Amino acid sequence: MTNKKLNTIYERELNKIENKILHLLISKKPVSLYEPCSYIISSGGKRLRPLLVLLSAKAVGLDYKYAYNAAIAVELFHNFTLVHDDIMDNSKKRRGRETVHIKYDLSTAILTGDNLIALAYKNLLKDCNGNLKEVVDTFTQGIIEVCEGQSLDKDFELQKNVTIPEYKVMIQKKTAALAEICCKIGALLGGGTKSEIKALSDYGRNLGMAFQIQDDLLDITGNEKEFGKKVGIDLIEGKKTYLFLKALEKSKGKEKELLIQVIKNKGIDKNEILKYKELYTKLNVFNDAKSEIKSYSDMALKGLRNIHEGEAKELLIWLIGILIERNK
Amino acid sequence: MTNKKLNTIYERELNKIENKILHLLISKKPVSLYEPCSYIISSGGKRLRPLLVLLSAKAVGLDYKYAYNAAIAVELFHNFTLVHDDIMDNSKKRRGRETVHIKYDLSTAILTGDNLIALAYKNLLKDCNGNLKEVVDTFTQGIIEVCEGQSLDKDFELQKNVTIPEYKVMIQKKTAALAEICCKIGALLGGGTKSEIKALSDYGRNLGMAFQIQDDLLDITGNEKEFGKKVGIDLIEGKKTYLFLKALEKSKGKEKELLIQVIKNKGIDKNEILKYKELYTKLNVFNDAKSEIKSYSDMALKGLRNIHEGEAKELLIWLIGILIERNK
Repeated sequence: MTNKKLNTIYERELNKIENKILHLLISKKPVSLYEPCSYIISSGGKRLRPLLVLLSAKAVGLDYKYAYNAAIAVELFHNFTLVHDDIMDNSKKRRGRETVHIKYDLSTAILTGDNLIALAYKNLLKDCNGNLKEVVDTFTQGIIEVCEGQSLDKDFELQKNVTIPEYKVMIQKKTAALAEICCKIGALLGGGTKSEIKALSDYGRNLGMAFQIQDDLLDITGNEKEFGKKVGIDLIEGKKTYLFLKALEKSKGKEKELLIQVIKNKGIDKNEILKYKELYTKLNVFNDAKSEIKSYSDMALKGLRNIHEGEAKELLIWLIGILIERNK
Repeated sequence: MTNKKLNTIYERELNKIENKILHLLISKKPVSLYEPCSYIISSGGKRLRPLLVLLSAKAVGLDYKYAYNAAIAVELFHNFTLVHDDIMDNSKKRRGRETVHIKYDLSTAILTGDNLIALAYKNLLKDCNGNLKEVVDTFTQGIIEVCEGQSLDKDFELQKNVTIPEYKVMIQKKTAALAEICCKIGALLGGGTKSEIKALSDYGRNLGMAFQIQDDLLDITGNEKEFGKKVGIDLIEGKKTYLFLKALEKSKGKEKELLIQVIKNKGIDKNEILKYKELYTKLNVFNDAKSEIKSYSDMALKGLRNIHEGEAKELLIWLIGILIERNK
């Protein structure tokens, strides 16, 4: 299939999801609860996770249309994490708009997140015929992992020493687990074999890992205009990203001291970004990150070996390329 | 069965639940997430909701032991609402101990509540054999109603006119819905007939309504020592309780003006409690509340007509008495 053809299918399914999401909560009451729910879910986003559900279902032989509700469920789940994470990180903006707790208030944002979890289950159940227990179990395990991952991420803020393996456990839970369950749920709904379910779960998890390290990389190498966010935010906020931890691991003497300062001062000043960027370059950590991304992408690809050739498999492969080459 | 015998069974099942709850999260990691989860769930409480699950299951013929996980699920659900509500109400104490967001911090409390929801589903699924879809659907609908109820309660804070019917819709969602789903889930797990499921659901909902109005009543009529909380908190905080709204509805002239002041000033001073208590007495709203409680209790009892005679039914009837005569 040509890239153009793949892109057409991708856009078509993306539109279907977008359309369903926009109509999901119309005229629901109380307005004080459903308006903020609508506000966050209709604020755009890549809709990557619902697509993973659809493509995984299709990859094991199910028509897209039987997985739309489950696809919406994972997007609601994702949006719940955004609303609650934004409170915890005290973020003011999300996708160019005010975050829920800023536009409304703290109580509304907490309730919005809570309600999105329940709405996610409600939609998930609509697409469950066989395999119900395993699907709901998988989904639930996903929420638990995301909570654990977010907790670890918060722990890291106060922790002086974080190793790369610890970091990987954290992003596996915080980011990759959701991508994994999207694929697993799609495969379960489609009645995939054990080997197919494993292959697609592995694909999702590895894609999620690659995606997160790519996110860390883009934060500092991204072009501000294309990226749409300020560059170097992670350093300014003193976040222990893959790049930072790798640099810390490889550095010695004065250079290590410079990095330890970031931890001690809980971040750097805006005008220091260039200095750290140069240090990262010198320590070659950009290439280390790229190797990690490549390695996870390769593992994601490898998983797909056990999947039948076809439109969905082609799209899943194509998606890896898109995500790796993205600049925002 | 004698009251003593009923009490023995009640205490035995209560201990089983307590014991299971205490061992539920031992040595789970990360500690930063599971310690606060353990902290809240092991802080006591009546464990009324899990008992409703067990008794409803038993009432349709299931042995208690097949519903323990579901019983724990509803208690986890209840504790999630406590943790998040305490943030929203900015409560400093709960069951004589610091609330989660005070003892830890806001982020931890948000994550603790989120994780408790997922842990609730995880436990619920363990007891689901048949009826899985309906059980999970019921549970999910319960969370949605509780969120809607809490949202309405928040709306009421800013709303000048709240009618008694509006108040009832709010407590039905915020309080009674959870009691209803406890009974419904028990009945579903036990494979109850449609009529049994309806009877027990009605019992739970009406019990929940009576319980909430009783709570409103105890806030002002309770003996401070027995009640364990300060008396008149609802008036101090300007909450639109059943008593307040009924008084507002019945009052005229200067008395109405006095009540409107509570709304305008968002509460009263501690030393004004007696004045308002006297006004409530004059307007006879304590008796109005008692009639409402009696009416909901009677409806709860009436529902049980369709339930087989036996230990569980006796306990469910006994429970109404206990809750109505409670002083804390």
